[in-house]
Amino acid sequence: MFDLRDDALSDPRWDLDMVGRLAGQLRVDAIRMSTRAGSGHPTSSMSAADLMAVLLARHLDYDWQAPARADNDHLIFSKGHASPLLYAMYKAAGVVSDDELMSSYRRPGSPWQGHPTPVLPWVDVATGSLGQGLPDAVGVALAGRYLDRADYRVWVLCGDSELAEGSMWEAFGRAADRNLSNLTAIVDINRLGMRGATELGWDTDRYEARVSAFGCIPIVVDGHDLAAVDSALGSVGSMDAPTVILARTVKGKGIPAVEDTNGWHGKPLPSDAADIAVRGLGGISNLTVPRRETARPRGGVPDRPEMSATATVMPSYEKGSKVATRTAYGQALVALGSDPRVVVVDAEVGNSTQADVFAEAHPDRYFDLYTAEQQMVAAAIGLSVRGYVPFAATFGAFLTRAYDFIRMAAISRADIRLAGSHAGVEIGPDGSSQMALEDLAMMRAVHGSTVLYPSDAVSTVELVRQMHGLRGVAYLRTTRGAYPVLYDNGEPFPVGGSKTLLSSDDDDVVLAGAGVTVHICLQAAESLALEGIRATVLDLYSIKPIDSESLIRAVRATGGRLVVVEDHHPEGGLGEAAVMALAQTTPLHLEHLAVSNMPSSGLPAELLAEAHLATPDVVDAVHRLVARSGTADTAGA
Amino acid sequence: MFDLRDDALSDPRWDLDMVGRLAGQLRVDAIRMSTRAGSGHPTSSMSAADLMAVLLARHLDYDWQAPARADNDHLIFSKGHASPLLYAMYKAAGVVSDDELMSSYRRPGSPWQGHPTPVLPWVDVATGSLGQGLPDAVGVALAGRYLDRADYRVWVLCGDSELAEGSMWEAFGRAADRNLSNLTAIVDINRLGMRGATELGWDTDRYEARVSAFGCIPIVVDGHDLAAVDSALGSVGSMDAPTVILARTVKGKGIPAVEDTNGWHGKPLPSDAADIAVRGLGGISNLTVPRRETARPRGGVPDRPEMSATATVMPSYEKGSKVATRTAYGQALVALGSDPRVVVVDAEVGNSTQADVFAEAHPDRYFDLYTAEQQMVAAAIGLSVRGYVPFAATFGAFLTRAYDFIRMAAISRADIRLAGSHAGVEIGPDGSSQMALEDLAMMRAVHGSTVLYPSDAVSTVELVRQMHGLRGVAYLRTTRGAYPVLYDNGEPFPVGGSKTLLSSDDDDVVLAGAGVTVHICLQAAESLALEGIRATVLDLYSIKPIDSESLIRAVRATGGRLVVVEDHHPEGGLGEAAVMALAQTTPLHLEHLAVSNMPSSGLPAELLAEAHLATPDVVDAVHRLVARSGTADTAGA
Repeated sequence: MFDLRDDALSDPRWDLDMVGRLAGQLRVDAIRMSTRAGSGHPTSSMSAADLMAVLLARHLDYDWQAPARADNDHLIFSKGHASPLLYAMYKAAGVVSDDELMSSYRRPGSPWQGHPTPVLPWVDVATGSLGQGLPDAVGVALAGRYLDRADYRVWVLCGDSELAEGSMWEAFGRAADRNLSNLTAIVDINRLGMRGATELGWDTDRYEARVSAFGCIPIVVDGHDLAAVDSALGSVGSMDAPTVILARTVKGKGIPAVEDTNGWHGKPLPSDAADIAVRGLGGISNLTVPRRETARPRGGVPDRPEMSATATVMPSYEKGSKVATRTAYGQALVALGSDPRVVVVDAEVGNSTQADVFAEAHPDRYFDLYTAEQQMVAAAIGLSVRGYVPFAATFGAFLTRAYDFIRMAAISRADIRLAGSHAGVEIGPDGSSQMALEDLAMMRAVHGSTVLYPSDAVSTVELVRQMHGLRGVAYLRTTRGAYPVLYDNGEPFPVGGSKTLLSSDDDDVVLAGAGVTVHICLQAAESLALEGIRATVLDLYSIKPIDSESLIRAVRATGGRLVVVEDHHPEGGLGEAAVMALAQTTPLHLEHLAVSNMPSSGLPAELLAEAHLATPDVVDAVHRLVARSGTADTAGA
Repeated sequence: MFDLRDDALSDPRWDLDMVGRLAGQLRVDAIRMSTRAGSGHPTSSMSAADLMAVLLARHLDYDWQAPARADNDHLIFSKGHASPLLYAMYKAAGVVSDDELMSSYRRPGSPWQGHPTPVLPWVDVATGSLGQGLPDAVGVALAGRYLDRADYRVWVLCGDSELAEGSMWEAFGRAADRNLSNLTAIVDINRLGMRGATELGWDTDRYEARVSAFGCIPIVVDGHDLAAVDSALGSVGSMDAPTVILARTVKGKGIPAVEDTNGWHGKPLPSDAADIAVRGLGGISNLTVPRRETARPRGGVPDRPEMSATATVMPSYEKGSKVATRTAYGQALVALGSDPRVVVVDAEVGNSTQADVFAEAHPDRYFDLYTAEQQMVAAAIGLSVRGYVPFAATFGAFLTRAYDFIRMAAISRADIRLAGSHAGVEIGPDGSSQMALEDLAMMRAVHGSTVLYPSDAVSTVELVRQMHGLRGVAYLRTTRGAYPVLYDNGEPFPVGGSKTLLSSDDDDVVLAGAGVTVHICLQAAESLALEGIRATVLDLYSIKPIDSESLIRAVRATGGRLVVVEDHHPEGGLGEAAVMALAQTTPLHLEHLAVSNMPSSGLPAELLAEAHLATPDVVDAVHRLVARSGTADTAGA
């Protein structure tokens, strides 16, 4: 699929005349590509073409034939809608043919999508939701400076509209705080957003003041003055801070008919207008930038031994002792830290999520990014780009702050591990703002995600161990309070499995829970046993994928009687996951207990009772079920 | 419940000696409250006690006996964890007794929750997720300046940790852009976050540079110097920009044992230490600030007539003509604009969501907040505080950016209306980053939410009309492409209802869709009819609440055969909503078609086919169902 050329060796860098010709080619190809596809963002590509031509020909240190090389620079288009420009650069780098681009851009199944994704080997992260590329790049640059300890640079092309996103200022602030001199943001200030003028227009003074106040080094340039751009790009990295090139540009530059004109965002030129524009830009060309030997000395990127997490000695617990799963989470992280690829990112709550014990054990691989959940998740994504094994944690409720980043992580094919502590009303007195009650729905809906919710310390440790090796977005939900250890150390907890904590050959009902409600179900079963009602108790610690087989078997064995108990709002959580798994099972007599109220403050037990998730509520639910399903075949229609 | 005193009239403002005594009382009460509750944040209350004492006694213009008064100032604790301080202020304002506070704080069912919520009549918005109070306040201040055109002021107590949240900078930037001189943020810079030092510590110079660069007027003060604080608070509003008081404070101030000491965040004092602290602060007192006549001339807050949306002439459409539901959404908004309470907020995508037609019709009630979805939703919340009827729209995918705000809107009891355009793979060539594929799961899980997904222009208009009157968080999902109008103008589309587009007395299967998949189901039914298979086609336009009754009836009538087709990931959307509604129905033979792949770019029809959501896929699903359920009673166990 990719045209991998292997031409010229250590040619000298092109002079600015050649760079100007390259810029013309990038423009021509971006115009042709979008016109051929019938959609795309040519004008947003035009404004940045000169910037990217200078970068590609004279500053980007990248072995195009070996995108996986550990010492390559990184180039991230935070303004992902300029994909025609990015792909035109790939052509100029010699890794894709003109034919392929022109025939495949924005076609189904093609890697040349409307916004870049890592389906292409030169793309680190998916972009297209504004304000994410730069925060992701902070993660890559953290890896470069503190973990790889290498000289590669991270270049990010940003739009001006996206500077209105708060996440960009989280990124600037954190990049400066961590002295990421290896990070350069190039802001294409073309003054026009999707539907009109941006907030600050071409007021580079105000941009400069903001960037500077956030600790970065601003350089204001005319983004179409090749010499000025070249000088700016050549000056980065000399001080101990990130550089932000504030480039004043013209949207549509190079196509006189649409330059600096509103109404042309995201619109390809009609083919006649495209022909005129291409001719005006000097016609079609096929320049390929010379392959260069690396232009500056590089630090070695040290080998990171692929240490197996299975060889790690994990913490163990005494059955019956009370341990919070968040505590077990932190202790498991410390153990996994024996793998030098394991990195922990925090958002100023490590003493609550218990991730902070990792900071003591492995301070060099712990990054607290302050109260900025979006940047925390983005950093995890960036770290995964460099092959690290990031774990990020905050209150489950506050992961909602980063949902757009989590969603995009799936498109980025990033392997990230998230932990949400303080799940549900169980947290007690702090009140509803601190309670994760939507997190299961949110995390289940992410493509390719894994959602885990252990009930005790032993299963937590084992699931965290497995998360180490999981692909995609993996989520672990932990509980604030301490509950009895239910399992023997060393018991297996496969992802997609479940545990049957209680069962007999003649059970009347299945009680299914996860996390804290497993303990409630066990108590309810005990209470029911006193009245002669026998319950199977299932610990559905793997919420996605769910153990359909065990669930179906157990539910069928009780004539379809199922009570699902979850500390989460009724929608999208354990109940719906279970019922969908059972949708083929006949008959089903269901009671679904979930948090249907808006909780207040109180002690955990009080709030669980208020939400009708206490032991007596489960017992009552079983009574209702039994009453209406004396025999299995009387149920339903 | 509330102790509503009605004492002194237009007393002069207390002098600073009295303010000092008040500050002591606030501290004492905050300590007692949290110690009695056994949890809470006394040290975070101590640092801001002097600031709030000065504000309460000398600057806040608030009729405590009439919190609904339209000309009242607004006070929002963005650092909601300082609730002991806020509630102590309420006691000093004379609206709650010492007894009630001491016995009810953080008790289940009590309005005195761990973080403030509008269960209390003096609280505008729920806080507790950092970085939200200020953005919400921007919405209130927008209403004050541009809609109410009144002189009330909006005061926000912010923490320093939360200045690491990007949302705060969205708020500062947008507040300055809109010249919100009626907004004052008071930042309690106590240097210590939850687990240690904040990023900038006491570096007020850097805070000042940032705030100033974002267009606000910074005033740096010693937050424990009552005269300096008084002077700062007295100077606000004179220039045409928001003021940000940067107050250097000491966490735990007034409790020598814990002042400026790490490890005391969110911890009540043990009762012996509390007793010592209370004595050191002068003991328990019961000062009540004198009720004041308004201190400055007020603009009148004009009456906003409660115009009924039902009286509005809504747009109508020709059956069979092709109209995008996003187009109908914009047109419905324009019509609803005849109610002067209707306000539209945008995040620089109005030309895509089609909300921008409202800007032309009612420019004075349209606020484009640039590419900042968090601020957009927060502004809607703030506008709802002042009784407006806000509609906010962006791509459904980008509402994920504001999920934490949407979740908190429910706790705030805010009535906000959100529209997410560009739903699902239907959008085509722009690729997966732009596709809403998790939005139904996310919105369904919000407490008290309504989730609507119309298939044509007529139903869209009618549902938008009803959203006008809905409480809580209402979400409308719209489609990018144009599809045939299916319904007659004026047909009712009750929330919680559904439409049966096709049915006979002897149907073999139910095809259930919403939005774009309704059209696919209709085509599939046509195709199935040719082979003699009769299908009921259901338009489940109300996804939450779902029309369980019609669904159950239809599914039972076909022997349990159901195909759900949705342009959304499989989890948490229409399929799970339907299956949960049917969980009691026996037997169920289900096929669930959803977007299980990671989509790429392409034409809508191509991507729907790629996701197995095209007409032949529905037909195949029916074939599978029929094959395994020749008669209903052979199904299942």
